[in-house]
Amino acid sequence: MSARSFSAEYKRNPQPMQVGLLGLGTVAGGMIEVLRRNRAEIERRAGRGIDIVRTATRNPSKPRSFSTAGIPQPDGDAEALVRSPGIDIVVELIGGLEPARTLVLEAIRHGKHVVTANKALIAMHGNELFEEAHRRGVIVSFEAAVGGGIPIIKVLREGLVGNCIDSLAGIINGTCNFILSEMDLRGGNFDEALAEAGRLGYAEVDASFDIDGTDAAHKLAILSAIAFGIPLQFNRIYVEGISGICYDDIAYARELGYRIKHLGVARRRPGGIELRVHPAMIPIDHLLAGVQGVMNAVLLHGDAIGPTVYYGAGAGGEQTASAVIADLVDVTRTLSSRHGDRVPYLAFQPDSLRDIPILPIAEAETACYLRLRALDRPGVLAQVAGILGEMDISIEAVLQKEPMRGAQHVHVILLTQRVREGNMNRALDRIRGLSSISGDIVRIRVEPLN
Amino acid sequence: MSARSFSAEYKRNPQPMQVGLLGLGTVAGGMIEVLRRNRAEIERRAGRGIDIVRTATRNPSKPRSFSTAGIPQPDGDAEALVRSPGIDIVVELIGGLEPARTLVLEAIRHGKHVVTANKALIAMHGNELFEEAHRRGVIVSFEAAVGGGIPIIKVLREGLVGNCIDSLAGIINGTCNFILSEMDLRGGNFDEALAEAGRLGYAEVDASFDIDGTDAAHKLAILSAIAFGIPLQFNRIYVEGISGICYDDIAYARELGYRIKHLGVARRRPGGIELRVHPAMIPIDHLLAGVQGVMNAVLLHGDAIGPTVYYGAGAGGEQTASAVIADLVDVTRTLSSRHGDRVPYLAFQPDSLRDIPILPIAEAETACYLRLRALDRPGVLAQVAGILGEMDISIEAVLQKEPMRGAQHVHVILLTQRVREGNMNRALDRIRGLSSISGDIVRIRVEPLN
Repeated sequence: MSARSFSAEYKRNPQPMQVGLLGLGTVAGGMIEVLRRNRAEIERRAGRGIDIVRTATRNPSKPRSFSTAGIPQPDGDAEALVRSPGIDIVVELIGGLEPARTLVLEAIRHGKHVVTANKALIAMHGNELFEEAHRRGVIVSFEAAVGGGIPIIKVLREGLVGNCIDSLAGIINGTCNFILSEMDLRGGNFDEALAEAGRLGYAEVDASFDIDGTDAAHKLAILSAIAFGIPLQFNRIYVEGISGICYDDIAYARELGYRIKHLGVARRRPGGIELRVHPAMIPIDHLLAGVQGVMNAVLLHGDAIGPTVYYGAGAGGEQTASAVIADLVDVTRTLSSRHGDRVPYLAFQPDSLRDIPILPIAEAETACYLRLRALDRPGVLAQVAGILGEMDISIEAVLQKEPMRGAQHVHVILLTQRVREGNMNRALDRIRGLSSISGDIVRIRVEPLN
Repeated sequence: MSARSFSAEYKRNPQPMQVGLLGLGTVAGGMIEVLRRNRAEIERRAGRGIDIVRTATRNPSKPRSFSTAGIPQPDGDAEALVRSPGIDIVVELIGGLEPARTLVLEAIRHGKHVVTANKALIAMHGNELFEEAHRRGVIVSFEAAVGGGIPIIKVLREGLVGNCIDSLAGIINGTCNFILSEMDLRGGNFDEALAEAGRLGYAEVDASFDIDGTDAAHKLAILSAIAFGIPLQFNRIYVEGISGICYDDIAYARELGYRIKHLGVARRRPGGIELRVHPAMIPIDHLLAGVQGVMNAVLLHGDAIGPTVYYGAGAGGEQTASAVIADLVDVTRTLSSRHGDRVPYLAFQPDSLRDIPILPIAEAETACYLRLRALDRPGVLAQVAGILGEMDISIEAVLQKEPMRGAQHVHVILLTQRVREGNMNRALDRIRGLSSISGDIVRIRVEPLN
C-alpha cells in the first residue's frame, strides 16, 4: 500500500459519535461538563468528536445542579432513546438493576454499543448482557463501574494481559474508606463518621449498600472475573461490612502496627479462588494503608509484574466521567476492528472462561485480630489462650487494657498467626461459651499483602 | 447481521502472531519465560497465540542465564530478521540508539509492527520513527519504555483520554530510587549505596545514565509528549542527577517532614510547560514518599479525575516483559482496525500535536531546601537571611547544626517558600560571594504535589 493511501485513511472522521444519555445524575453532570470543557483535547486524541444528541431521564423537569447548555433537553422516553436509529452509543447512568437492565438489553438488541457506570448491573446481569452483546457484535464497556476514574478495568484487561494474576486487594468503596479514615483521624465512632460522610456528600441518604459491603462485592465480582477468567459470581462472595468496627479497634490496630481498611480480596489458591469483602488490618507502612478519605486503590499481584498499585478517586461526578469518556473513546477507536479482535468483555475470550471453584470462606487463611470483652478476673486470658492452643492457633501478640473506672470488663486483644477460617470459627464458638466472656467477639482479618 | 455470522467472526485466528526478537538480554529472557509459562492464559485473552519465530543478537553463541528452549536458535543477522516476510511484529530489545534505530526503521519500511522497550530510542528518535510508521500504516508500541511493567503509557493514552492533564511527577528511575532509599534506611553515603545497588544487580556497571538523570529524562520526554500532546523534546528538559545528595540532606529533610526522591516533573503553566528532572523533597506522608527501593510510581493530575497514582516495578526481566507482552497483544487486537482508528503513537492524532513552549528552568517555581556550609561565627545567618529578604524570598524554616568537634564550619539549612528559580539563582550567586560561606550550596526543590 502506498504512503498516500494511509494518509488518506488517517483523515478525521467528520461525523462525531452520536451518544444517547440515560440518566441525569451526578456522573451525567460530570460527563456533560468534561465533554464540554475538554472538547478540543478529546477530539485531538480520538480523531473524532463525541456529541450527546439525546438525553432521557425519569423526571425531565427536575432542577439540576449542573448546566445542560449545549445538549438536547431531556425527555422521559428512555425506551425511544435506546431504539433511536441516530444513536451509536448509549451511555447508561441510571444505576440500579431495573429499568437499567431492560434498557441496556434493548439498546444492545438495537445494535447500540453501551457504556455504563453501573456496577450492580454488571455484577448481577453482566453474563447475560455480554452474551447478548456478543451475539449482536456490539461493545459493552464499564470502566466507570469499578474504582471511579482509575482505569483499573483497562489495566487488568489490557495492561497486564501477559500476567497470570495471583491476587488482588482493593479499597473499592470510598464511603467505607472515608468513614474508617475519619474514625482514625478524629477518634470518633462509626455513627459520627457516617454522619460526616453524609454532610460532605460522600454517603448517600441510604448508604446501606456501601456500609454493608454490597457495593464493594459488586466491584469485586467484576474485578475477579476479569483477573482470573471466570464468570461473574457475585453470590459466591463472602461479605462483611464495617458497622462492627469501633474506634477502639482502630486504636488497638495502630498499637499493633496496623491500619483497618475495608477490602475486597480475590486470591488464587491451589484448590480455587478466595473471594471476600470485609474489614482487614494491613501493615501501617504498606502503600494501601496510606489511602485516605474517599480515595480508592487496588493492589494487584501478577506473576510477571509482581505487586502493582492503582490509586485515584473512587467516586464523584467528573472523576467517574473520566472513565465513562475513556470508554466512549475506546468504543470510537474500536468500531472499525473485527469483533473477535476487540478486547473481550471479561478480559478472556467468551469461550475460554473457566469454571475455577470459588472457595468457601471456611477455607480462607489469614491471621486474625480478636477483641474480646472479658470479666476482669484472673485466669481469663489463660482460658482463651488454652482454647486457641488446643485448636493449634498460635498467638502473635496480646494487649490487655485496664478496665475503665468502675467497669467490670476489660478488652482483651489477641493477634493470631495465620489460621484457617473454619478452625477459627470453631475456636470462637468455644470462647463464646466461656462464662468470663460477654458480648460479641470482634474478629478482623489481617490481610497478607505481599 | 445474524447472530450466526458474529459467532463465526469470533472464532480464534488459528495462525499465531509471528514475532521476531532482536536482542537476548534480561528483558528478552523474561519475555521468553513469561510467554512460555503463561502461554495458555495469554491465548485465552488474546484469542490468538504469540510465537517467537526468529531471534537475532550480536553474539549468538554467548552463554545466557535463561533457557531458550522452544524458540529458534539466535543468529547474528538482525538485518535479515527485520526484512523477513514471515514476521508480523519485530520486538526490539537491543537498547541504545544504534543499531536499534536503523533496524527499527528498516522493520517499519518492511511493513512490520514494532514493539520496543527502548526509552532512549523513542525519546531521541520517536518523532522520526512515528512519522515513518504513520506513512507505512504500522504500529510502534513502547509501553515498556517507561515504568517497566506499569501500563502507564496505556493509562495516559487511553485510560485518561477525557482529561486535560495538568501535571505529572514520577519516580521513574529505579536505580536512583534504590540509592536514595538505601541511604535513608541505612544512613550510608552515596558511594556505598551505589555499590550496594551494583551488588544487587540494580545498577549497571556503568550507571551514569541513571545517576545523572539522563534515563529519567528519556522517560519524561515520552510521558510529557503523551500527556500534553506535544512532540518529544528530550533536549528541552532541565536535568539534575542525585550525586550531589549526601546523607545529611536526607536526615535534615526527614527532620523537616520530607523525603528526598529523584523525580521527573512535567507541569502545565500559563505560559507553557515545565519539564524537569531533579532530586525533590516531598512530604513524608505523601503516597510517593512511600515508594521504596527499585519501585517506580507516577502521579498524574487530570482536570476530571484529580490526582491518580500508578505504582509497580520499574525494571527487571519479567516485569518489563509484562509490558512488552501487553504491547504484543494490543498490536494483535488492533490489526484488523482502520489505521486512523488506532491509538495514536503519542496519544494525540499526529496532525494535532501542539507547539506549546517548554519553559526555561529559570521560570520554574518551587520552594527550596538549601544547605550551606558556613563559618561558625555570629551574623552568618543574618547575612544569608538578609540577602534572601532583599530578593523577596521568604524563609519557611531554619535548622542550624552544631559544628563537629574541632570543625570550624556548621551546616545551615534553610527551607524557603515558593520562589522563582531565576530569582533563587541570583540570590545563591550573592550568598556564594559571602566570605563566611564555603563550598557548594546544595539546593533541593520542594515539589508541590497537590
